[in-house]
Amino acid sequence: MKILAFGEVMMRLNPNGFKKMTQTDSMDFSFTGTGLNILAGLAQNGYDTTMLTALPDNNLGKTAAANIRKLNVSDRKISYSGNHLGIYILELGYGGRPSEVTYLDRAHSAFNEWEVSEADLEQALENVDLIHICGIALSTSAISRKNALTLAKKASEKGIEICFDFNFRASLNNEEGMTSLLAAYHEILPLVTIVFGSLRDLQELLKIPGETEEDVVQTFMLNYGIRIFSGTYRHQEGNQKQLQGFVYQGNKKVVSDKITYEVWDRIGTGDAFVAGILTGLIEKWAFEKTVKYGVYNAVLAHTTVGDSPVLSKEFVLNYMEKQVDVIR
Amino acid sequence: MKILAFGEVMMRLNPNGFKKMTQTDSMDFSFTGTGLNILAGLAQNGYDTTMLTALPDNNLGKTAAANIRKLNVSDRKISYSGNHLGIYILELGYGGRPSEVTYLDRAHSAFNEWEVSEADLEQALENVDLIHICGIALSTSAISRKNALTLAKKASEKGIEICFDFNFRASLNNEEGMTSLLAAYHEILPLVTIVFGSLRDLQELLKIPGETEEDVVQTFMLNYGIRIFSGTYRHQEGNQKQLQGFVYQGNKKVVSDKITYEVWDRIGTGDAFVAGILTGLIEKWAFEKTVKYGVYNAVLAHTTVGDSPVLSKEFVLNYMEKQVDVIR
Amino acid sequence: MKILAFGEVMMRLNPNGFKKMTQTDSMDFSFTGTGLNILAGLAQNGYDTTMLTALPDNNLGKTAAANIRKLNVSDRKISYSGNHLGIYILELGYGGRPSEVTYLDRAHSAFNEWEVSEADLEQALENVDLIHICGIALSTSAISRKNALTLAKKASEKGIEICFDFNFRASLNNEEGMTSLLAAYHEILPLVTIVFGSLRDLQELLKIPGETEEDVVQTFMLNYGIRIFSGTYRHQEGNQKQLQGFVYQGNKKVVSDKITYEVWDRIGTGDAFVAGILTGLIEKWAFEKTVKYGVYNAVLAHTTVGDSPVLSKEFVLNYMEKQVDVIR
Amino acid sequence: MKILAFGEVMMRLNPNGFKKMTQTDSMDFSFTGTGLNILAGLAQNGYDTTMLTALPDNNLGKTAAANIRKLNVSDRKISYSGNHLGIYILELGYGGRPSEVTYLDRAHSAFNEWEVSEADLEQALENVDLIHICGIALSTSAISRKNALTLAKKASEKGIEICFDFNFRASLNNEEGMTSLLAAYHEILPLVTIVFGSLRDLQELLKIPGETEEDVVQTFMLNYGIRIFSGTYRHQEGNQKQLQGFVYQGNKKVVSDKITYEVWDRIGTGDAFVAGILTGLIEKWAFEKTVKYGVYNAVLAHTTVGDSPVLSKEFVLNYMEKQVDVIR
Amino acid sequence: MKILAFGEVMMRLNPNGFKKMTQTDSMDFSFTGTGLNILAGLAQNGYDTTMLTALPDNNLGKTAAANIRKLNVSDRKISYSGNHLGIYILELGYGGRPSEVTYLDRAHSAFNEWEVSEADLEQALENVDLIHICGIALSTSAISRKNALTLAKKASEKGIEICFDFNFRASLNNEEGMTSLLAAYHEILPLVTIVFGSLRDLQELLKIPGETEEDVVQTFMLNYGIRIFSGTYRHQEGNQKQLQGFVYQGNKKVVSDKITYEVWDRIGTGDAFVAGILTGLIEKWAFEKTVKYGVYNAVLAHTTVGDSPVLSKEFVLNYMEKQVDVIR
Amino acid sequence: MKILAFGEVMMRLNPNGFKKMTQTDSMDFSFTGTGLNILAGLAQNGYDTTMLTALPDNNLGKTAAANIRKLNVSDRKISYSGNHLGIYILELGYGGRPSEVTYLDRAHSAFNEWEVSEADLEQALENVDLIHICGIALSTSAISRKNALTLAKKASEKGIEICFDFNFRASLNNEEGMTSLLAAYHEILPLVTIVFGSLRDLQELLKIPGETEEDVVQTFMLNYGIRIFSGTYRHQEGNQKQLQGFVYQGNKKVVSDKITYEVWDRIGTGDAFVAGILTGLIEKWAFEKTVKYGVYNAVLAHTTVGDSPVLSKEFVLNYMEKQVDVIR
Repeated sequence: MKILAFGEVMMRLNPNGFKKMTQTDSMDFSFTGTGLNILAGLAQNGYDTTMLTALPDNNLGKTAAANIRKLNVSDRKISYSGNHLGIYILELGYGGRPSEVTYLDRAHSAFNEWEVSEADLEQALENVDLIHICGIALSTSAISRKNALTLAKKASEKGIEICFDFNFRASLNNEEGMTSLLAAYHEILPLVTIVFGSLRDLQELLKIPGETEEDVVQTFMLNYGIRIFSGTYRHQEGNQKQLQGFVYQGNKKVVSDKITYEVWDRIGTGDAFVAGILTGLIEKWAFEKTVKYGVYNAVLAHTTVGDSPVLSKEFVLNYMEKQVDVIR
Repeated sequence: MKILAFGEVMMRLNPNGFKKMTQTDSMDFSFTGTGLNILAGLAQNGYDTTMLTALPDNNLGKTAAANIRKLNVSDRKISYSGNHLGIYILELGYGGRPSEVTYLDRAHSAFNEWEVSEADLEQALENVDLIHICGIALSTSAISRKNALTLAKKASEKGIEICFDFNFRASLNNEEGMTSLLAAYHEILPLVTIVFGSLRDLQELLKIPGETEEDVVQTFMLNYGIRIFSGTYRHQEGNQKQLQGFVYQGNKKVVSDKITYEVWDRIGTGDAFVAGILTGLIEKWAFEKTVKYGVYNAVLAHTTVGDSPVLSKEFVLNYMEKQVDVIR
Repeated sequence: MKILAFGEVMMRLNPNGFKKMTQTDSMDFSFTGTGLNILAGLAQNGYDTTMLTALPDNNLGKTAAANIRKLNVSDRKISYSGNHLGIYILELGYGGRPSEVTYLDRAHSAFNEWEVSEADLEQALENVDLIHICGIALSTSAISRKNALTLAKKASEKGIEICFDFNFRASLNNEEGMTSLLAAYHEILPLVTIVFGSLRDLQELLKIPGETEEDVVQTFMLNYGIRIFSGTYRHQEGNQKQLQGFVYQGNKKVVSDKITYEVWDRIGTGDAFVAGILTGLIEKWAFEKTVKYGVYNAVLAHTTVGDSPVLSKEFVLNYMEKQVDVIR
Repeated sequence: MKILAFGEVMMRLNPNGFKKMTQTDSMDFSFTGTGLNILAGLAQNGYDTTMLTALPDNNLGKTAAANIRKLNVSDRKISYSGNHLGIYILELGYGGRPSEVTYLDRAHSAFNEWEVSEADLEQALENVDLIHICGIALSTSAISRKNALTLAKKASEKGIEICFDFNFRASLNNEEGMTSLLAAYHEILPLVTIVFGSLRDLQELLKIPGETEEDVVQTFMLNYGIRIFSGTYRHQEGNQKQLQGFVYQGNKKVVSDKITYEVWDRIGTGDAFVAGILTGLIEKWAFEKTVKYGVYNAVLAHTTVGDSPVLSKEFVLNYMEKQVDVIR
Repeated sequence: MKILAFGEVMMRLNPNGFKKMTQTDSMDFSFTGTGLNILAGLAQNGYDTTMLTALPDNNLGKTAAANIRKLNVSDRKISYSGNHLGIYILELGYGGRPSEVTYLDRAHSAFNEWEVSEADLEQALENVDLIHICGIALSTSAISRKNALTLAKKASEKGIEICFDFNFRASLNNEEGMTSLLAAYHEILPLVTIVFGSLRDLQELLKIPGETEEDVVQTFMLNYGIRIFSGTYRHQEGNQKQLQGFVYQGNKKVVSDKITYEVWDRIGTGDAFVAGILTGLIEKWAFEKTVKYGVYNAVLAHTTVGDSPVLSKEFVLNYMEKQVDVIR
Repeated sequence: MKILAFGEVMMRLNPNGFKKMTQTDSMDFSFTGTGLNILAGLAQNGYDTTMLTALPDNNLGKTAAANIRKLNVSDRKISYSGNHLGIYILELGYGGRPSEVTYLDRAHSAFNEWEVSEADLEQALENVDLIHICGIALSTSAISRKNALTLAKKASEKGIEICFDFNFRASLNNEEGMTSLLAAYHEILPLVTIVFGSLRDLQELLKIPGETEEDVVQTFMLNYGIRIFSGTYRHQEGNQKQLQGFVYQGNKKVVSDKITYEVWDRIGTGDAFVAGILTGLIEKWAFEKTVKYGVYNAVLAHTTVGDSPVLSKEFVLNYMEKQVDVIR
């Protein structure tokens, strides 16, 4: 099973030990991005994964590629140009204190200024079984939007299954941007068959009508020919937080139990859910098992460092069965 | 709004990662003290703050001053003399395990041996709107007590509002010390109008009679002409800890909800409460909002590293409104 | 009171901050082993403790010895030979995520290849009041098994009280190993008077019959002449974990309350329980106090770093009395 | 003496221990820029320094300001806008191995997109005795060039002495950029009186003719009305590196001895030289002493961490007198 | 150009900052081995490299593989078995103080107990242009010796060029071992065409007669049909250390200049020389350039952290041309 | 051979990586003192060493004791009282930049306020063969001076050889202090037989007359009945630093070669010389070997971290023979 992901790779910088940036003189760094995180999660499970992106043509770009390889994701399709990589600084919250994300300039990153030819995109699709296209790429620049749409068309033409993730961030889009973004949604959605998102995405962005979640989702899936629509609900009672996953397939909806979670590092847990669901689809598990696996993968990702999933399928399946203190 | 604080600045040394001192060969350091912590909290909110203290005349004193500036507190009024700074070592507890504080010699610090002239103290009060005097300074040396009392008199003469904090530490006072301390309380309290403390301070130290907390506090406030008396209650049920704030003004008492808190770094949370209440007073918020803000400021301070508050007014107000996982 | 422990000392390597090994380029190290951990716990309480083991004859062996001395355990009886020390890598879990232990080669460690003479073992027992023999030594090599049994015989001959700990690890024993191990159990148990273990050890390993735990334990104690049999129960409801201790003496069973615990570093907490019970026995406390102390010692050990107990008797007794946030 | 500097502030990220970025997962960070480094050096010596720049309006901007204050440079004139700060990554070289600097996007930093009004610039000049304008600001954007030139005109009108630093970086300028840059040089040089640079700047950029360095410099100084022209020569014999400073005043040239230097952190040493020369000018020392001080300040800056000078005038003067191993 | 290396991969553990193991509680770790280091050096230069080895079938093995990928060396041919990896602890020396290497058990590593089939070895040679076989594999176990010899035969049969490295370590071989090792040398040398070693290897191990180095080497090369014999000389005068490389081809000997070097991390510099020479051979450079490149690659490797070369061909060639302080 | 040392133990705090205190938020800590350093050096060589000192009766005192044991020095004779330990902060210099030592309050340390009975001092001398008394104890307080002199008398009465170290620090003594110090010198010197110091100590402090060093030393040794007088000369030519040792015995003077040294951590190197000379005296080596060993021990101590020697006799002797890069 060969999976390709198209999306931006950023550098994450974070102070350690829940310090604020003003309280330290060093930060940990790692490389992240929805596509990369999902591939890293899939690579843990033995699938062949490849990142399609652009990195700066300097030592930072080389370092990003080295770390991508370390995650067991192939860097063979990465292009190198420009001098800039998107960076975000993460001041992790503890307990009830929210984490704070500070984005530096992202518009001028190698990825967002990457003038790639159609031929090169087409070539990247060779032997690919599944491609993930991150919705953020539709917002960050006109170039990245064009690249994402071209790629979706090429993949669709070749019969490669496309997975799409809304990942909508209000702060990345002004009013003008919203118009382009919606146009892009309307262009890409008919080409894709697996979609990750929330009711809010369907109602507030796409203005899909409907009384209940089920109505809205069914309408959405019919309109665009979507095979799978999946996402999570987050619940909170007092200090206790719970995660629940759902998967729609045709007119069937499967919902997991609410699983209590504890948080060490909050970022990337949604990507872990996606990686979990895709694992279930690849393995052709029952939807009940798939959504359970997705939720547990996400729940465990709250307890690990960094945005990319780092626990294997074997580990997560064991944990679903039985929760122990120590594995020897 | 220009606020001055008079008090000792100490160096805090602490092992990382909840280790005991015997388990490591390095410690983090920072600079702390009730006055400094309160000013740091107020400086976050945009007020003009200045520390009035003495530091050793060596590289450690310079380092302390640099870190004070970093907290956005002015070091212009700091005096340099002697070679010693009070130090405390903090072995942070995790979960139910209590934190352990080890004080090294404090009696011979620059602050506690600071022979400052009345003229210099008077000069420090220029353009000051509010002064905070830490009650610990009444215990740590005869010199610091004299300085604190002189300063209170000068400030009172100039019509500057004085805020006083009992901060009573039994371990800092022997019997003889208690006599001097009580005399000092009787001397300073008539000069001050805002007081932070607890029922225990009024009953056990000042021997104020009364059936109920309300009686005792009212008597105390009337006796000494106190405008505001404020403090916190800590509650614990099972492993769940809760904080609650109160403010007395005249014969009105406002009490906040009990807010559950989680602990990463316990020290300095009382100072965060004080900074929160003073912020409300400066902003002339309703007392209900003020005490709520004070409690939330303190609750969040349990989740941040170090003794000084590091979260802005905007952050805390948002948190009071709505608790999210990530701020992007 | 002079206590000797016989057992393997290993190096523990662990990434910090709950990272996986793949996410970092440095690890903390410390030295550990059931015997060493128990002695470290006893040394906190002022008893004279000595480790009887073999370390490699190189800089790593010297470093282990230095760290053993730092724990206040005497290294005078340590022998140096070979070039290898058992190592385990600990990837600590957070929240519900289990910790992962990766053992490297242990069969060829200095301890497991230590050809020590009977005379040297006998000499090590001089002036010893109590000896702890770790059950793991009966599994790790034929040599270590022989050494453990010889030592037990010598100690028994000299009338030194022997404490034995099953510490059974299925992963260390294949079928053939199980036969030798059981033979060794049958040889050592008649010599020992204090045993730490669980119902599972008695039923599944020794096949002791009985309807109830009490029946099984009584039969076991009678069969082998055991004076004290002690261990813990772990309970979990939702995310809340609780620990409970028990001690059998003659036909009396004392059980502690269930104490809720929070986990920072899970490993070594069983050894902390043992150290606590032995402390109570040495101090001749009532069994109720002894088992309570054992449980609290273990509960607190979950909140401290490393496998060896680091909190003094005074600290734990205070904590049993009253739980405070900060000790100044 | 009040000194203002106008220039960009960047974040420096560097791996520790001479590692390459690929060999670690954490980097130290600090804030730097020619103007800031020079002010930091002057602030060590007791002068009143203020940074005139723009920082991003987010947590990174606040962190930069906090660190600027820690260097004892005032942040009162800093403007906040945009979301980006220039970043450079420094992989420090050891021994003969050169350090590698990787610049990320700088064109879209808050400073380079800072639309500041003439009135605000004028207001920033109040009570200023000396202003430093960094030549890099003439290259990095049309906006920063305009701001620099406006500021120079305003300062000149007010009779404030202007110090200018070529700091030419070929890699920052393409051919078109060179034309604008030269025009800017011709506009700013008549307004300034103190210039730091090299023969290469005068010959290759300004095309000043002359047989010898002395000829070229004299022509340059006469043409533009320059009072002081100063810079350094670097010499290398085998592995031994030496630094030498020069100052031209009118037709007098003073040259220091060649001082051998050892390198721990190479960056910022030129700025330390400038800070040293300006100190001598402010103190009105003899030029011999001034240039000696400048060179020693730079030589010592090679042995300290970070781009900003951290050694006081007293320290450097003592070192010029007598070189000891330890100062107690 | 596809290069395969066969050899053991070990974990290196080292305290930081030139501390001894007794002075710290943490160590850096990385993965190393002659073959891996050489491949890492070649991978920097754009060649396709693959490691042929065995790693333990646990989290440590996975971590090693992740780090191998990070070095841009393929892990596709790695086999997983057993639970042990060879480890060495490096206490780095500073200045004249020698580095100390402590080897833990290596005999029972996955590599040294790897029972690999001939078919698997043969399969690993597919499409390979050049194979490096590390001489250490002839000493560490009978199994590894057999594997190395089998592989050499298969490669020779397929016409793949074989590069061999004596890498003789007296401490790894007792008298009996020496006999087997010499037999293995006699078996493998006729199959290989590129050899790295020293005069000492030829004289003391192989007992090749001859008056001069040239005589001995010529005899050796003729006897075994060696195309290239290469190595280094280390010179020291006072505290100044110099490295010089040589390459024999047929009866031509090319010797580089003596290049002064400074040391930050001494280990792996010989492997950097080999990687440099192989680069020259692959690029078909003149031998003068090749040996110069090899020496500079090694000289620079003394200034970088870790055993594997981390500097690109472009970096080293620039350095050979011109030595600068900073590359921007 | 059992050696006792009497002297103050301090905590050393130092920033890492040659940073100034203002550039970091963490410091390494260790425990030091002339006596402790010398014992640590001797303990490396297998002698039985014991520290006679007072530490604070709190967690810092316990930590100091644990680290003393780690150095293989016995803590059995340590007394616990008070709350303070002397602290010095070390900002390490690099290259020519001097290290900076900042002493915090030392006068009120447990050691300097230690009211120990004569009986306890006498008891500490049991079975002691050699005692080292640090001259600093004669300056730091009247109590420590009294203790040192009492101890010297007791030791002398018991026929225990006494080693004395001037260790004069001008900054620790005002004029009045100098009078007491000289009186103490006159009292202690007749009791001691081994003295470490310099010509400056004899001439400037004791005012011993003489034309040449030899004259002065001979007069000194005759006057006070000194058996051994030893010390070092430091030479510098350009950037090259050299150390040379001397030993006077009777009228024989032995001088070592000048040995070039490189510096990583300068402090404690004089104590390493003393430990080296005492080793030679204990081993009854020829004076030529003894002084050579002392110098090499000190030269190597410049390359190791911390104040206490960490290299064994075997290591140093090998180094004296042959200087290699790596010991495997």
